Amino acid sequence: MKAKRRIVFARRRIRSLSTLALALMLSGAVAGPPEPAPSPVYEVRPIGWVRKADGRTSIVLDERYRPGLLGVDALEAVWVLYWFDRNDTPEQRAILQVHPRGDPANPLRGVFATRAPVRPNLIALSRCRVLSVQGSVIEIDDIDAMPDTPVLDIKP
Amino acid sequence: MKAKRRIVFARRRIRSLSTLALALMLSGAVAGPPEPAPSPVYEVRPIGWVRKADGRTSIVLDERYRPGLLGVDALEAVWVLYWFDRNDTPEQRAILQVHPRGDPANPLRGVFATRAPVRPNLIALSRCRVLSVQGSVIEIDDIDAMPDTPVLDIKP
Repeated sequence: MKAKRRIVFARRRIRSLSTLALALMLSGAVAGPPEPAPSPVYEVRPIGWVRKADGRTSIVLDERYRPGLLGVDALEAVWVLYWFDRNDTPEQRAILQVHPRGDPANPLRGVFATRAPVRPNLIALSRCRVLSVQGSVIEIDDIDAMPDTPVLDIKP
Repeated sequence: MKAKRRIVFARRRIRSLSTLALALMLSGAVAGPPEPAPSPVYEVRPIGWVRKADGRTSIVLDERYRPGLLGVDALEAVWVLYWFDRNDTPEQRAILQVHPRGDPANPLRGVFATRAPVRPNLIALSRCRVLSVQGSVIEIDDIDAMPDTPVLDIKP
């Protein structure tokens, strides 16, 4: 009789624990593995533009950024960071492997091992010689960018 | 008499032209110099994060970007582009001149003539030696970035 009671009691305990677990699951308190935090998004804006005219190449800064050029005239060369704006589509930003220089004969490589103009963040990088700085215009020797490409940053 | 009529007619024409001009101005059809086009905004997202642990420095890529690493193990060094996320406030992004290395003894210079971590677009640039690539983790020699800094791009 005592043993039977113990079994009934144990069964009740199991049932109430199951009910508790079910309630917790339904309330969302017990979930699967945690969801990864959503990736942050940062905003960048052009500080200026690549201009090409009469065989000359310049970076024409927006007037408001002109104070940022103080001292650039003393530099022999700068890093120019710009935006591959012609490729700013979700499809092109999703490309992770390419045949370098678009030649199928070149074995596939990851975009992070190449300078391909398609990549998740369309930032381009070129080293440019500074010829002169006048007002908000930096004349440079050359840059491997299309005319009117947005420029994001300039660094020594 | 004829001359007088001509004058009256001319005056009426002037008056009606002025009324037209006023109407156009009020309607906004005649404005001052054209407003500059609003600056475009581009979105960038971390592809991974700088991690520092046990005296080792790594770039841990989000798993989804792992295919982009194909071939990085063959590189001796890479450019790492990352985001000065600690300075991502409108106030810090508006700073255009700094005393280099925060030392008031250094004369003011434009942010584009320095590597200051405040600038309109908070992109940082470092050259890092590749020690190994395992899965989505690149071990590097070192990087002048805080632990857990978001990484935007990797280039040869």
